[in-house]
Amino acid sequence: MDNNQTLDETLDENSVISLTDQWSSLTPDERREKFKELPRTDAEELFLNLPTHDQAELISEASHLEKRSWVRLLAPDDVADLIQEMGMDHKEDLLSLLDPQTKREVIALLAYAEDAAGGLMSTRFVRLRAEMTVDEAISYLRIQAKTHVESIYYAYVLDSEQHLAGVISFREIFSAAAGTKISEIMQTEVLKVPPDMDQEEIGRIFSQHDLMALPVVDENNVMKGIVTFDDVATAVQEETTEDIHKLGGVESLDAPYMKISMFEMIKKRAGWLLVLFLGEMFTATAMGYFQTEIERAVVLALFIPLIISSGGNSGSQASTLIIRAMALGEVRLRDWWRVLGRELMAGLALGVCLGLVGLCRILIWPTREALYGPHYVLVAVTVMISLVGIVLWGTISGSMLPFLLKKIGFDPASASAPAVATLVDVTGLIIYFSVASFVLHGALL
Amino acid sequence: MDNNQTLDETLDENSVISLTDQWSSLTPDERREKFKELPRTDAEELFLNLPTHDQAELISEASHLEKRSWVRLLAPDDVADLIQEMGMDHKEDLLSLLDPQTKREVIALLAYAEDAAGGLMSTRFVRLRAEMTVDEAISYLRIQAKTHVESIYYAYVLDSEQHLAGVISFREIFSAAAGTKISEIMQTEVLKVPPDMDQEEIGRIFSQHDLMALPVVDENNVMKGIVTFDDVATAVQEETTEDIHKLGGVESLDAPYMKISMFEMIKKRAGWLLVLFLGEMFTATAMGYFQTEIERAVVLALFIPLIISSGGNSGSQASTLIIRAMALGEVRLRDWWRVLGRELMAGLALGVCLGLVGLCRILIWPTREALYGPHYVLVAVTVMISLVGIVLWGTISGSMLPFLLKKIGFDPASASAPAVATLVDVTGLIIYFSVASFVLHGALL
Repeated sequence: MDNNQTLDETLDENSVISLTDQWSSLTPDERREKFKELPRTDAEELFLNLPTHDQAELISEASHLEKRSWVRLLAPDDVADLIQEMGMDHKEDLLSLLDPQTKREVIALLAYAEDAAGGLMSTRFVRLRAEMTVDEAISYLRIQAKTHVESIYYAYVLDSEQHLAGVISFREIFSAAAGTKISEIMQTEVLKVPPDMDQEEIGRIFSQHDLMALPVVDENNVMKGIVTFDDVATAVQEETTEDIHKLGGVESLDAPYMKISMFEMIKKRAGWLLVLFLGEMFTATAMGYFQTEIERAVVLALFIPLIISSGGNSGSQASTLIIRAMALGEVRLRDWWRVLGRELMAGLALGVCLGLVGLCRILIWPTREALYGPHYVLVAVTVMISLVGIVLWGTISGSMLPFLLKKIGFDPASASAPAVATLVDVTGLIIYFSVASFVLHGALL
Repeated sequence: MDNNQTLDETLDENSVISLTDQWSSLTPDERREKFKELPRTDAEELFLNLPTHDQAELISEASHLEKRSWVRLLAPDDVADLIQEMGMDHKEDLLSLLDPQTKREVIALLAYAEDAAGGLMSTRFVRLRAEMTVDEAISYLRIQAKTHVESIYYAYVLDSEQHLAGVISFREIFSAAAGTKISEIMQTEVLKVPPDMDQEEIGRIFSQHDLMALPVVDENNVMKGIVTFDDVATAVQEETTEDIHKLGGVESLDAPYMKISMFEMIKKRAGWLLVLFLGEMFTATAMGYFQTEIERAVVLALFIPLIISSGGNSGSQASTLIIRAMALGEVRLRDWWRVLGRELMAGLALGVCLGLVGLCRILIWPTREALYGPHYVLVAVTVMISLVGIVLWGTISGSMLPFLLKKIGFDPASASAPAVATLVDVTGLIIYFSVASFVLHGALL
């Protein structure tokens, strides 16, 4: 059952909507072909709907004159994205195609980081004056709606120095009585963001407040532009994919799975895999120290995978919960102390839980004496105590590692399940053999 | 450095915006207190901005008459959400508070799954007739904007049988000449979704097409309602959190990390941890079969954690990439064959890569003979061949498990890093000891 049925059925295969959908699955030659065949207005519509990456492809193949007409179709923030996509080598070339006003706006946008409010914002928003009446505002909006504004759903009320004085939704203007002054109906308490605010933080504000757009103002409350919901949604989705990849122990692919070249993909995966492998080599070193214990009591070796993986699993649970909670803004750096308290409790409870299951597993196994020797009860106790210690340790490492990484300026999502598991494996072995030395001393060791 | 500075500075602590932000961090008593203190209009504004969960809390504490006025503030889709949140026990009670028209709409909405288009949609959209002129349309919209419509940014053009004939954005109406007929400027090629389309699928359509709202139509093209971008964004974010939790091997918490009770959290984590533990117990069984090999060549035990974790890590990489690509719609069930091809190649390359590093690690280690015995070269070869096999096996299992789970109707995200690692651990041991038996036969074994 394909959910897309209604979409596919109702749309003509060569319509702009279908083409936008298929675009990324076409070969570069097919794309060139289809684009040429389209009537001019459809081609423009398609071009405006494509992601920056595909726009860049089309632009780079166009002649100089075509290039100018395509680039001039775009809003300043989209031109800035295009320049960032095509690389700074093309900057002067692309800027030279613009009219002087747009060029100034694009240069201003390029000064901000791509993933901050300033880099995402559009400078073409709808402006009003507080002293206008609703009827004047509507005529004025009607003129602005015809020009290249990003969104007409909110109008921003500015004073003569461009300070943001208030905001009013289109709908509020529209449903108010004709003679009312804008200053009487505008909202003066405005949610606004600084140009350097990160896109993830902006995403949180959008989802908490159900807004369509947010104004960007500098430190003097001077209006710089607006960030719209859809810009941030795409950005947040990309960031989430990056987080998920990191959580799985892969460097982010930066391209769809089916599109990326085999060499590129192996390179991205080999990096982390090798780092983890080198980290995991310490387990061989640690085991080397306990070689005599293993020789005397081979039974101990049997439980090594079971015990160290329990530490890894509980650590991976803890780090995943904390990393997601951090990304959603539910947990902040200063909360580490409260998290530690919770995780100590949770880790202890989970450790006791697994420990008891492990104990019973050995004690009630039918062939326990043949398999684990005459001291099977002591072996069972060793396994139980080790499990409590290792699960507790895994939980604490897994929950604290994201805080540590964030504190020293790294991405907390690097505390991936495999990374935490590797970290916990080495210490897990040390815990296990230390407990064994103590419990089995005089019996097996 | 707190990015929220500008927000905090510009807002009064008891403003509606600040209260909405703080709400979830207040205790139930504080919430009750603050809510009572607010002037009526602010209280209403706050109530409308709160998530369903918090609305339900306030409603359940209100008197019958208060309840009615609060519930009547809500749009039909929000009432339906509220009923789903409070449980079907409260259904009749809450429905009785509504006017007959809204009641009918809410009952219709409750018939759809919460996470499908029908369950997310609003029935209060803006309608126009094709034969209207732009000026007539604007006056008509001005009336509709005053009533309780969800979004005025698109107007839907319906015929007398409620069939969807076209769509037009507010801005297009607004910037067109006064006497133009709507039928001349409306778009007749409309992206629309069926009521049973899943929210993740809708989220993909939104992000591909940069839309604010999508019409929901039944199989006869009769307009049922609209789904807005923000409804789906929240839903998609929740689903992503659920996916991430599953990927980390935790049952989804369904509540913010800091809010959930300790008992609830331990329960959610213990479930998967126990399942994984029981699965991992097979490693002890598998190792039991190889006890004599370990006794004869204790050196083999040293590399067990290193080798099985490499299988787990490569499997976790593969499953994470595939699960995310599935969630984004980049990979579909029918692509399994192409994915298998890619992963066979990638797994082999990664396995050879780790195998060579492992080989060198043993061959060049200064104390290699003391640590690994006279047959250290054979041990190194065993480790190398095992790594190739295990990494390849991990990669294939990790990439195919999500397809298998999806095929049999489970959530592919359950193929979490810990689950794949557990699966791969047992087979990894078997591969390792089989290779060892073969390579070391006559030498150590």
